[in-house]
Amino acid sequence: MGTIRHLFIVGIGPGSAELMTKQAQLAIEKSEVIVGYRTYIDLILPYIQGKEVVATGMTKEIERAEIAIDLAKKGKKVAVISSGDAGVYGMAGLIYEMIAAREEKISVQIEVIPGISAVNAAAALLGAPLMNDYCTISLSDLLTPWEQIEKRIRLAADADFVIALYNPKSKKRILPIQKTQEILLQYRSVDTPVGIVKNAYRDDQEVIVTTLGEMLHHEMNMVTTIIIGSSDTFKFDQKIVTPRGYQNKYSLTER
Amino acid sequence: MGTIRHLFIVGIGPGSAELMTKQAQLAIEKSEVIVGYRTYIDLILPYIQGKEVVATGMTKEIERAEIAIDLAKKGKKVAVISSGDAGVYGMAGLIYEMIAAREEKISVQIEVIPGISAVNAAAALLGAPLMNDYCTISLSDLLTPWEQIEKRIRLAADADFVIALYNPKSKKRILPIQKTQEILLQYRSVDTPVGIVKNAYRDDQEVIVTTLGEMLHHEMNMVTTIIIGSSDTFKFDQKIVTPRGYQNKYSLTER
Repeated sequence: MGTIRHLFIVGIGPGSAELMTKQAQLAIEKSEVIVGYRTYIDLILPYIQGKEVVATGMTKEIERAEIAIDLAKKGKKVAVISSGDAGVYGMAGLIYEMIAAREEKISVQIEVIPGISAVNAAAALLGAPLMNDYCTISLSDLLTPWEQIEKRIRLAADADFVIALYNPKSKKRILPIQKTQEILLQYRSVDTPVGIVKNAYRDDQEVIVTTLGEMLHHEMNMVTTIIIGSSDTFKFDQKIVTPRGYQNKYSLTER
Repeated sequence: MGTIRHLFIVGIGPGSAELMTKQAQLAIEKSEVIVGYRTYIDLILPYIQGKEVVATGMTKEIERAEIAIDLAKKGKKVAVISSGDAGVYGMAGLIYEMIAAREEKISVQIEVIPGISAVNAAAALLGAPLMNDYCTISLSDLLTPWEQIEKRIRLAADADFVIALYNPKSKKRILPIQKTQEILLQYRSVDTPVGIVKNAYRDDQEVIVTTLGEMLHHEMNMVTTIIIGSSDTFKFDQKIVTPRGYQNKYSLTER
């Protein structure tokens, strides 16, 4: 039975220091060791001067989680860094899963610090596409069978959710996004507004407003976020807006 | 054709100053007039000393949006405050909708500042429930017909999404949450983990971990966020965790 102390799992937001919260900054300051993917460590360099840093490469999430848990068990104050929100396809779940698998009792609380997630960052740059019910779907079929992903896309399309796609495409994996477009076109018009965002709030930010019919003509990769409008979503002045229903002159809440 | 300058739509996060971003703070500092719901204005008092403040009551979203647009057209620098993320059931969409309805041309960019949304704040307090595909559904049938909401719940249940519910219940509206439970129980076990969060990161915060079968025994209102696990979600040490699939020893991304 290990004793885990001071394990912070910190969402640092999309990458700009201005979109990191004060709470994230304080958790990093309180920690002795910072564990993270090298690219994200670089984004927070001003906050980690003089601290022990364990930076590893891409696809090394399990290794990082193990290192962080072991260091925390030894009594170190550890912060694990995740981009966006640590709880959305991030490090928070992995660390809980690994501790649960080891059947260890947590005697000191793990603290998850929420961050601005990729979908919220992309939405802000695109206008207001998430103003009604939405879902997020990862197109990576490494961790979820493709049949399950395809079923989710089909049902989400039928439910008329705004759909945010994570991990839409990689060098080796180009069929899922093509299949996604094909399914969505059975439910929505070719003119449905689509936003494509890369490197939100970083120096190399790219924001594209296009349509469901045209979306595959744009480059995308594993760190692109795609937001596909519902049947109500409209384009306005190079922005994408999903109405909440205010045109009916109702109020947002009846509390 | 009005000229709109310096209209910031600012998500201030769940309510703790520590979870507001630096970018939100800077937008407020740069503004001459702050427009918002009174409760949220109170949360940011330290940042708005000496500024003109337009604080109105609940259900006055349309009035606030009109005031903000009119002030901005007169050349004032205006920040409209929204709790959570301004783009998720918040003020961003409403302002875009109203400008689009007026057929006015935006000659200066509106800037949406993303914030920590209610679902991300609730998830961080609950552990890691959003680690796989999830959706958000508002149960308020004032702006969306109940038939559409019910269809979304049914399809989301079938798709095995983690489901976050906004506006689950009000004094007058108690049937939708009962009906939601009934539908979900057709697809998921009574033991499915459910998290109920009220006033996240405020003094009167409440975090409850319960099950789909027991959830209605707890109090909830229009500002409660409920997160219902997928068929994979498990309870661990009073936290809720949805596995990402790491137990298969795959890596998160194949980039």
